[in-house]
Amino acid sequence: MFELDPRLKADTHFILQWPLSQVLLMDDRRYPWLILVPTRLNVSEPFDLTYEEQALLSRETMALGELMKEHFAADKVNIAALGNVVPQLHVHVIARFEDDDTFPSPVWGLGHAERYELSARESLIDTLHARLRDIEP
Amino acid sequence: MFELDPRLKADTHFILQWPLSQVLLMDDRRYPWLILVPTRLNVSEPFDLTYEEQALLSRETMALGELMKEHFAADKVNIAALGNVVPQLHVHVIARFEDDDTFPSPVWGLGHAERYELSARESLIDTLHARLRDIEP
Repeated sequence: MFELDPRLKADTHFILQWPLSQVLLMDDRRYPWLILVPTRLNVSEPFDLTYEEQALLSRETMALGELMKEHFAADKVNIAALGNVVPQLHVHVIARFEDDDTFPSPVWGLGHAERYELSARESLIDTLHARLRDIEP
Repeated sequence: MFELDPRLKADTHFILQWPLSQVLLMDDRRYPWLILVPTRLNVSEPFDLTYEEQALLSRETMALGELMKEHFAADKVNIAALGNVVPQLHVHVIARFEDDDTFPSPVWGLGHAERYELSARESLIDTLHARLRDIEP
């Protein structure tokens, strides 16, 4: 049975389940930062998914990126599957702004995560849940 | 008419044209590092491509990642579309090793590119060209 890697679990909050992936909010208010985790066992590389799952992951990633660009009025969306630290396949989808803390650098390894206040986090999760449940990736 | 961004051109070498994208070798021998550039005008985000092109980009990315993992016996493949500096849509596909210069960090912004010797570069491009031309993404 699928279980979220404990390191991902410690840093994120669940928003909703899409056909292939869980959509998670990274608990770092410096950036609107979501993570897709395909709920498949023992998959580390996206090309280890079946072809059908690869196509679905692409559609989920594109739908999420497009929504984030629009919803947050982002200057750029960063999309990445790295997995050097946490091997469980996960795809970062991050809204970037020319005036954010680290632009134009990628976000990883720079500065420290700033956790959301509880009420701000719950409000953001509710808002994103309402937007994402209406999408059919 | 499509033209490669001059900053990408300065840092890479052409390997071959796939149905959607040019496949380029990043001129940095610290990592086997290829870049896919869809030959479409004025596209910065992958979700700005048509749905058909998005599906093709996914297949090209997966095929390239799978080949690099196998060919270089990589520990992990890093895949990313960032574009904060060069807005022309391009997808990084990088073979990573637990003993490479910066593992497990992402490669961007750490250290300095080390260019290939001409003969090593030409040999690598020939080898990759021979492998990639036989793939139908």
